[in-house]
Amino acid sequence: MLLDALSTLPELEAVFSDAAVLSAMLRFEIALARAESRRGIISEAAANAIASLTIDSLDAAAIARNARASATTAVPFVDALVAALDGTSREAAAVVHRGATSQDVTDTALVLCLLRAQPIVDGFHERIASALRRLSDEHAGTVMLARTLLQPAAPTTFGLKAAGWLGSLSRSHDAMTDAFRRACVLQFGGAAGTLAALGGDGWRVAEELARELGVPLPDAPWHAHRDRLASLVAACGVYAGAVSKAARDIALLMQAEVGEAAEPGGGSSAMPHKRNPAGCAVAMTSAARLPGLVATFLAGMAHEHERGLVGGPAEWTTVSTAVIATGSAAAALAGVVENLRVDRGRMREALDGTHGAILAERAMLLLAPVLGRQAAADAVRQALRASASGGFMAALLANPAAAPIIEAAPAGFEDSPNYLGMADQFRRRLTGDASE
Amino acid sequence: MLLDALSTLPELEAVFSDAAVLSAMLRFEIALARAESRRGIISEAAANAIASLTIDSLDAAAIARNARASATTAVPFVDALVAALDGTSREAAAVVHRGATSQDVTDTALVLCLLRAQPIVDGFHERIASALRRLSDEHAGTVMLARTLLQPAAPTTFGLKAAGWLGSLSRSHDAMTDAFRRACVLQFGGAAGTLAALGGDGWRVAEELARELGVPLPDAPWHAHRDRLASLVAACGVYAGAVSKAARDIALLMQAEVGEAAEPGGGSSAMPHKRNPAGCAVAMTSAARLPGLVATFLAGMAHEHERGLVGGPAEWTTVSTAVIATGSAAAALAGVVENLRVDRGRMREALDGTHGAILAERAMLLLAPVLGRQAAADAVRQALRASASGGFMAALLANPAAAPIIEAAPAGFEDSPNYLGMADQFRRRLTGDASE
Amino acid sequence: MLLDALSTLPELEAVFSDAAVLSAMLRFEIALARAESRRGIISEAAANAIASLTIDSLDAAAIARNARASATTAVPFVDALVAALDGTSREAAAVVHRGATSQDVTDTALVLCLLRAQPIVDGFHERIASALRRLSDEHAGTVMLARTLLQPAAPTTFGLKAAGWLGSLSRSHDAMTDAFRRACVLQFGGAAGTLAALGGDGWRVAEELARELGVPLPDAPWHAHRDRLASLVAACGVYAGAVSKAARDIALLMQAEVGEAAEPGGGSSAMPHKRNPAGCAVAMTSAARLPGLVATFLAGMAHEHERGLVGGPAEWTTVSTAVIATGSAAAALAGVVENLRVDRGRMREALDGTHGAILAERAMLLLAPVLGRQAAADAVRQALRASASGGFMAALLANPAAAPIIEAAPAGFEDSPNYLGMADQFRRRLTGDASE
Amino acid sequence: MLLDALSTLPELEAVFSDAAVLSAMLRFEIALARAESRRGIISEAAANAIASLTIDSLDAAAIARNARASATTAVPFVDALVAALDGTSREAAAVVHRGATSQDVTDTALVLCLLRAQPIVDGFHERIASALRRLSDEHAGTVMLARTLLQPAAPTTFGLKAAGWLGSLSRSHDAMTDAFRRACVLQFGGAAGTLAALGGDGWRVAEELARELGVPLPDAPWHAHRDRLASLVAACGVYAGAVSKAARDIALLMQAEVGEAAEPGGGSSAMPHKRNPAGCAVAMTSAARLPGLVATFLAGMAHEHERGLVGGPAEWTTVSTAVIATGSAAAALAGVVENLRVDRGRMREALDGTHGAILAERAMLLLAPVLGRQAAADAVRQALRASASGGFMAALLANPAAAPIIEAAPAGFEDSPNYLGMADQFRRRLTGDASE
Repeated sequence: MLLDALSTLPELEAVFSDAAVLSAMLRFEIALARAESRRGIISEAAANAIASLTIDSLDAAAIARNARASATTAVPFVDALVAALDGTSREAAAVVHRGATSQDVTDTALVLCLLRAQPIVDGFHERIASALRRLSDEHAGTVMLARTLLQPAAPTTFGLKAAGWLGSLSRSHDAMTDAFRRACVLQFGGAAGTLAALGGDGWRVAEELARELGVPLPDAPWHAHRDRLASLVAACGVYAGAVSKAARDIALLMQAEVGEAAEPGGGSSAMPHKRNPAGCAVAMTSAARLPGLVATFLAGMAHEHERGLVGGPAEWTTVSTAVIATGSAAAALAGVVENLRVDRGRMREALDGTHGAILAERAMLLLAPVLGRQAAADAVRQALRASASGGFMAALLANPAAAPIIEAAPAGFEDSPNYLGMADQFRRRLTGDASE
Repeated sequence: MLLDALSTLPELEAVFSDAAVLSAMLRFEIALARAESRRGIISEAAANAIASLTIDSLDAAAIARNARASATTAVPFVDALVAALDGTSREAAAVVHRGATSQDVTDTALVLCLLRAQPIVDGFHERIASALRRLSDEHAGTVMLARTLLQPAAPTTFGLKAAGWLGSLSRSHDAMTDAFRRACVLQFGGAAGTLAALGGDGWRVAEELARELGVPLPDAPWHAHRDRLASLVAACGVYAGAVSKAARDIALLMQAEVGEAAEPGGGSSAMPHKRNPAGCAVAMTSAARLPGLVATFLAGMAHEHERGLVGGPAEWTTVSTAVIATGSAAAALAGVVENLRVDRGRMREALDGTHGAILAERAMLLLAPVLGRQAAADAVRQALRASASGGFMAALLANPAAAPIIEAAPAGFEDSPNYLGMADQFRRRLTGDASE
Repeated sequence: MLLDALSTLPELEAVFSDAAVLSAMLRFEIALARAESRRGIISEAAANAIASLTIDSLDAAAIARNARASATTAVPFVDALVAALDGTSREAAAVVHRGATSQDVTDTALVLCLLRAQPIVDGFHERIASALRRLSDEHAGTVMLARTLLQPAAPTTFGLKAAGWLGSLSRSHDAMTDAFRRACVLQFGGAAGTLAALGGDGWRVAEELARELGVPLPDAPWHAHRDRLASLVAACGVYAGAVSKAARDIALLMQAEVGEAAEPGGGSSAMPHKRNPAGCAVAMTSAARLPGLVATFLAGMAHEHERGLVGGPAEWTTVSTAVIATGSAAAALAGVVENLRVDRGRMREALDGTHGAILAERAMLLLAPVLGRQAAADAVRQALRASASGGFMAALLANPAAAPIIEAAPAGFEDSPNYLGMADQFRRRLTGDASE
Repeated sequence: MLLDALSTLPELEAVFSDAAVLSAMLRFEIALARAESRRGIISEAAANAIASLTIDSLDAAAIARNARASATTAVPFVDALVAALDGTSREAAAVVHRGATSQDVTDTALVLCLLRAQPIVDGFHERIASALRRLSDEHAGTVMLARTLLQPAAPTTFGLKAAGWLGSLSRSHDAMTDAFRRACVLQFGGAAGTLAALGGDGWRVAEELARELGVPLPDAPWHAHRDRLASLVAACGVYAGAVSKAARDIALLMQAEVGEAAEPGGGSSAMPHKRNPAGCAVAMTSAARLPGLVATFLAGMAHEHERGLVGGPAEWTTVSTAVIATGSAAAALAGVVENLRVDRGRMREALDGTHGAILAERAMLLLAPVLGRQAAADAVRQALRASASGGFMAALLANPAAAPIIEAAPAGFEDSPNYLGMADQFRRRLTGDASE
């Protein structure tokens, strides 16, 4: 759709398309019929008739339209199955969906779609992680300004910066993977969540059904307990936040006035000279949807009794949009970091452009123990005011109280690459390359 | 789409469909060409060539796909116009979109779509308002339990209850109407928001363009100032909240154990006896999307400089989804209240079922000034404990201290319809029928 | 409190402090007693006894603690009044709070606090508006880069930029003022919202009470209909979003690499050279609370029946935090814009630093009608690649096809101040100085 | 505070009070001084002087007030330490906070507070879990109506209902515990996150500092990477959602018209007969704050570079409010479930009150395979219409086509306790008592 072109991707849209959703719903019903036939609850002939159904016989638009009358897509969906079977197998028409309820088919269908979406999102993350690891290694020694509150702070390396993004993305990807694993389990409880319609066979049908669908069987049905899906949506939100952090940093580095890094970028409809951080913008635009979606899911967790007024149907949109937008954000960031150009020269210029002011902390550390905090601060501040002409260090050396202390400092004191502390150790720990 | 079947409506989807969006974008470009040709900026021939374009020559899916490369649909859209014109009019291809920038076309297209959506939403509101006014009038004298924290409180009327819903819906509909009016204005500023590309003609082209599109011209372009759209989304959120309030109340009244009102309702895929408050559920499901969408819009208001990283494109989805979901909620509530059955008998039974306990406040008001607050409270509490057998009033009359005070109260004291205070005056003020 | 030091202000905290809240609650009860005494419902002596109460006799901490037992502060508050009166006037103890219910006192107390908060917030806005108007006038002719997606776009003026902030802030302040006016009305409905406890006197007591408190009387009680408060919180959210937009722009302009504007700023605990955009940071930090608060309010609008499970008490925190954070954001922005230093030189340098590339749109407008869109685009792109050395315009003039067209352009074509279009007209319209 | 009396608890407020926050900040500085003195970076005398500081010498209100000037509480806090030390040890004044930056002290102080809050929240959860396990065991055989969309569905047990709440709460408590563990790690990175100020000693000082504070040392500083805190806030949101689910269910069961369960409840300021689900209301009111807080945190994750404009300070409020509100919700639910009275009689009456209609699904399962789906549905619907008089089963037996099938069903067919399927197995799996 044009309206959300920047927060979706065709390959993820496809996973949650009407056809895909109907397919997943039908897979549930077919697997249920097979499981029930194996347990002797319905005949093999009926199961075969159900198994021969395809989504071609279903009218998604009509099902969507009719869903409003019963507040669930499951009712018109089952009606459509019955209609499709009525001509061919009266028995199958009588027993299709037997023992199941609306949320069994809709929740499990959602799970089946999520299981298809996960590897797509993972693929984007792997591209990001691999590109960031490479960038971090390449730029282990690329010194640049750290910036706090958008102002020059002290030296760091681009290698550490990239590793920081990687660390946060990897941690939150791990958490998202875990959340997918916990959330993607069978929902099968029948009308009241007791499988009463299946008599003593409930558990065995559930086991067969889970095996048939390749989906784990949880301790109990979860039709009214949505914590697992909530945790998944929230984990997407955290991951998207980490994507957004990296994208914003890169867009800021790409400002013409900064120019330390650049993604391929995109153009403008009016201005031929523009080279916009389009990939970062798409990543951030996609990620921006998540906080609201997470809040929507959480605010709706209090399902009334065994099925809430608002509930499954509201969550369906929220979960799918969240996963799609997260994947879209990751895809955009993958494109950005795989093609990122880093400008070591501009980074160095920015450091030099501070005229040494970023070493003010270092000067304080030397001067304060000798001169006292106040006198040291005065000397540093005075030197900072003079730093635009000649530089901070020269100005400090012109101060008779400070000069001897500074002169006694180790050689190379004033050189940024000598003021990097643990930057590379942290970098290696974050990239998992901390063998040393 | 199946996934959001319960929070959209075909007629509102159509307003924001790819075809509708492309149409609106094209309307902008055609109107711009006409305006510029009238001011002599481009030739009439070029304007005519542009005006002869139709959306049939445009590939929405391709535009959506390519939008990611430039973080706007406008760039591939204009490219598609140029390609479509290249064969027929080299001049038109050169001047199409002249002087405009991406957000001019996308923001104004959004406004054009909003102007089509508004009367649809209004239509649902009018149905709600008319039905509620009728229900309130019909049930001006229908006494029922007011309930606070879901417990019986004191008598009220269903007429006042319906009028309360109407009041809140009318106020928030007025506010939404106002917000639509303020938000639906032309966006036209060119690359930097100065219309510099049009030289001295900027303002006059803008005036022509606004007239051509039938959209008011604001004081200045608003490409980076999103307060008007924010207010519109927020107003939708408030209106949807008011819808949700009425829907929840009705679903609660429809509980089998309460049974005081019922909407037509819908069925279950498993249980033939179910009559679910499906309309209320759809209304609440649709409305549940709004808080998160409003938060998303507000959180994204700080567009960087003259166009933000996240911005227009993110808002497009948010605004359209908000308006669609609001309309969907209103449509569902309209269906509910137009077909609501009110059960006066059950309402009366519920009052009686409290055995007079809901008159405890009234008893306190009589007893406290005479007996003192503590003694009155003790007498009332004692009578309440005894109320299940024989009733609260009988128990109170058995108390020698309380009896004479109660006996001196006006006749009919113990009858709920005599304890309605201002219920009907408030009702008439809320329904606008306060002529008396 | 330290934990939210950056999103509150002492003067606004004071308005919602325990003492202020208790005062407002007590004002309600005293005014109610007076109104009832005037209508002969309670004695003048009882009213006088109630009117002589002060908050010194109330233990806020105990009331807060006990509020959990009844899910409202009103119950322990009234208990405390009764206890305080018991010694002095048995009659007053019996009749205090007569005819009112919990939400009458808590909602009206909230309204009384809001009425005190509004002028404080307004004061900050007036300071912002006045400073921005002055900045806009002063810098009507200060040419600078417009930036889209954080990249140089085309020339604009700082005067227009400041006027843009002003326009958005003024519009949303107007809307907030309107929302305050609508929301700040008396809540008085008694147990069921019918004032039944006051018999036929309900309306007159309500009128007296409203007059006594200086608060308008609405059409009906609104204990369960929260659209007015919702609109107020939402309006705060929109205003805070406008504050955030200006603050972010200024923080971006203050980047060392941009340096076009600077607020006084604050220091660092580690780095003496830091001059951080602390005012912008505080404004944005405060404003960042709003979207979540608005969503919280909206998500809670569906109060069950005549008083919801979640409801008034939840809203109390949300509304007060929203207003305080909005005021805190405005106060911080006021400090920023009143003390903003604008660097015309750096603005000019940034324009020059594009080597003329920002005129690429202008060149396209000249070349495309003659050369055709594609050839013009090729010429411009080629010149852009060469622009770092010698400049865009020189490179364009070296192109034999483009040169004659460019040479025929009006003198001063290449000068940014001649490419400002409607900037000043828009500016004057936004600042309300469009008399010409 | 009165304004948020229903979403806080004194014991959790205390953990995040000004005194507690200052204590935690001071603990950081003292531990840092000790660590640095052990590594020979500062003298033992200086470390001792710093270690002798107490929060009595600090003015929390002044620090909060001054925090706005630098957008962090750390700057005025360190200034206050320096002022306090200046009189006693010039050396200590010079070296306090050496090598650290603002976020080191504020983030680590937050972590220290969180570590104190966690066992308090855990204690409430343990009370809930133990009470729910007991309720579930006691009511393993208590048959009641399952309700979907607030309408009678089919029989279930209260034991399973309680176990469902327990399952969701236990899972989300486990996730919250995990999130606490991941989030509660030392933040120590110095000005740029490299510990450069400590030269080659950075890592060892960090190790000493972590050991001194009893807080784990992570792979690298996380000043600008907030995924761990985001996950914690989100986990609180999921847990609070699970609390809210149980609280809402109980409040619905406690409706006078349902009366199947009751918490002790609270009173009204106007109506002596009221017994409100005050505990449920407080639980839901507290939990209602979470979705907005989670969205706020997530929306703010994109910190600019090494410290964002909005960031730490905004998060401080969000995280602490989230944890306090989560604890408050859990405490309220603990009170509810520990004192819950379950009314087996009313549960049975509600089942009987459906006149057998809840067995309609069961009848369909028997009839459909024999009569065909449509004929079976017709028979069932006809019987449902007649069920109010005489009951559903009698009506069905009056149908000549249906009667023989029904009569052939196993004895006790029409008895709810025989239609519970896997209810007890699910219950035992959820309570962890599935040994059989």
